Amino acid sequence: MNDAKIGNYKFVAEPFHVDFMGKLTMGVLGNHLLNCAGFHAAERGFGIAEINENQYTWVLSRLAIELEDMPRQYEDFSIQTWVENVYRLFTDRNFELKNKDGKTIGYARSVWAMISMQSRKPADLLTLHGGNISEYICDKECPISKPGRIKVTQEVSAVEYQTKYSDIDINGHVNSIKYIEHILDLFPMETFKDKQIKRFEMAYVAESYYGDTLLFYKEEKEDGSIDIEVRKASNEVVVRSKVVLVNSEY
Amino acid sequence: MNDAKIGNYKFVAEPFHVDFMGKLTMGVLGNHLLNCAGFHAAERGFGIAEINENQYTWVLSRLAIELEDMPRQYEDFSIQTWVENVYRLFTDRNFELKNKDGKTIGYARSVWAMISMQSRKPADLLTLHGGNISEYICDKECPISKPGRIKVTQEVSAVEYQTKYSDIDINGHVNSIKYIEHILDLFPMETFKDKQIKRFEMAYVAESYYGDTLLFYKEEKEDGSIDIEVRKASNEVVVRSKVVLVNSEY
Repeated sequence: MNDAKIGNYKFVAEPFHVDFMGKLTMGVLGNHLLNCAGFHAAERGFGIAEINENQYTWVLSRLAIELEDMPRQYEDFSIQTWVENVYRLFTDRNFELKNKDGKTIGYARSVWAMISMQSRKPADLLTLHGGNISEYICDKECPISKPGRIKVTQEVSAVEYQTKYSDIDINGHVNSIKYIEHILDLFPMETFKDKQIKRFEMAYVAESYYGDTLLFYKEEKEDGSIDIEVRKASNEVVVRSKVVLVNSEY
Repeated sequence: MNDAKIGNYKFVAEPFHVDFMGKLTMGVLGNHLLNCAGFHAAERGFGIAEINENQYTWVLSRLAIELEDMPRQYEDFSIQTWVENVYRLFTDRNFELKNKDGKTIGYARSVWAMISMQSRKPADLLTLHGGNISEYICDKECPISKPGRIKVTQEVSAVEYQTKYSDIDINGHVNSIKYIEHILDLFPMETFKDKQIKRFEMAYVAESYYGDTLLFYKEEKEDGSIDIEVRKASNEVVVRSKVVLVNSEY
C-alpha cells in the first residue's frame, strides 16, 4: 500500500559532483533531493509544470539532512521520497538515502508551501485538487528530528559575497542549492578532511536576487553545532543554516 | 560500422541546472560532455577506473563548443560522442548535442592526454593497450573548427578570486567545470538576456589548488570575441577561454 506512495530514484556520484575527499557534495545531494521531490510530485499530478498551469508554484521552506555516510565517486546510490503530512499551508516531504549496497545511509526532511505566482500568497493545500494531495500521505518512518530553530546573534560577518550570473535560477532568485555551496565554502577545506557533516539544515526565509550583496554570519553554539545566517546589506535575513560536524568515520 | 563506435547518452535539463533564461548552463553542459567521454571510454576499456589501475589518468587539454540552441528547463536532450583521432600524446574526442526532437543543436571538440600519476609525464597512446584505442576512431562529421589560439595581453585583472572548498575535485585540483562557471560569472547577467554563446573554448594549461588566488584577465578582440586568461598570483597561466556572443535568436 505504502509502496505506491514512495518514489524511488537512482543516481551515480559523478566525478565533478564529489569533493576533494571523493564524497558526494552536500549541494549535489540537495539538488538530487529536490529533483526527487519534483519527480514524485509530477508523477502524481502535483509537479511544478502541472501547478504552474494553475499559476501556483512550490516553495521550499526547510530542509534537514542527517547522514552516516556519503556516496563516493562513481558509486550508485538511490533516494526514496514520500509525503509525511499535508497541512493547510505546508506539506512535509521526507527522504531516505541508500548506498550502492542498498544500505540506508541517511534521511532528510523538507517542508514546502505552495504560493500563487501573482499574489505570492500561500495556497490552501487541503482544498487544492479537491484535497487530493492528502491521499499520498504515507506513514513510512523517518527517524531524524524535524528542522529546529536556528538563531544567530553574531554581528560581524565572516564573508561578504555579491551574487553572480551562475547563482540565479529561472525565477530570477538565487537558487536553493547555491546557498548550500556558499555556506559550506565558509569552512576551510581541511575541516572536511577530519570531520564529516552529521546533520545539515537549511531554512529558506526570503529571496535574494542578482547583484545582491549577501553577508554570511557564522556562530558556534554551546552544543558544538555551527549556525549560519545569510543577510542582505539591508539586514533582511535570506537563509539560516545549521551544520553539525562529527569526527570522520566515513 | 560507425554506430558501434558512437556513444549516445540521454539527459534532462534539471531546474537547478538552467540559468535565469531557463537555458541549460554552459557549466552543466560541460559536465555532461565530460561524463559522456568517461562513459564512452569506460565502456571500451579506456575509462578512468580501468586506467587508474595502471596508474594513468586522462587529462583534459582543450574543449570547444558551438551551439545554435540550448535545452530548456525540463527538456530532454542527448549527447553523442566518438573518437576522431589518436596521436602519440593526444586524442581528439568529438560530441554532437541533440534537442528533445532529435534535432542537432550543437557540436563540441575536446583534446585529451594521458599522464602517469607518478611522474605526471604523458603516456604514448599509440602503444597503450597494444594500440587498441585506434580501433575506435570514427569518421563521423564534426563541422566546427578546432580549438584555436587564445592570447590575452591585458595586464589589469577584472576579478580576483580565492579558490574554495567547493572548487576542488578528488585530485585536489580546481575542477574543470568550476573554471567555466567562474569565467561566465565575469559577465553581467544582462549579457545573457540579449546575447547567446555561439562558441565557447577552454584551454586547460596548468592546475590550481585550494586557497590559490586566481586573477581573471578579460579582453575584447577585433572580431568581437572575448578572450579570458586565468592566472595565479605568481603570473602562471592556469586556463584560457574564448567566448563568442551573438544576438540572441534562441
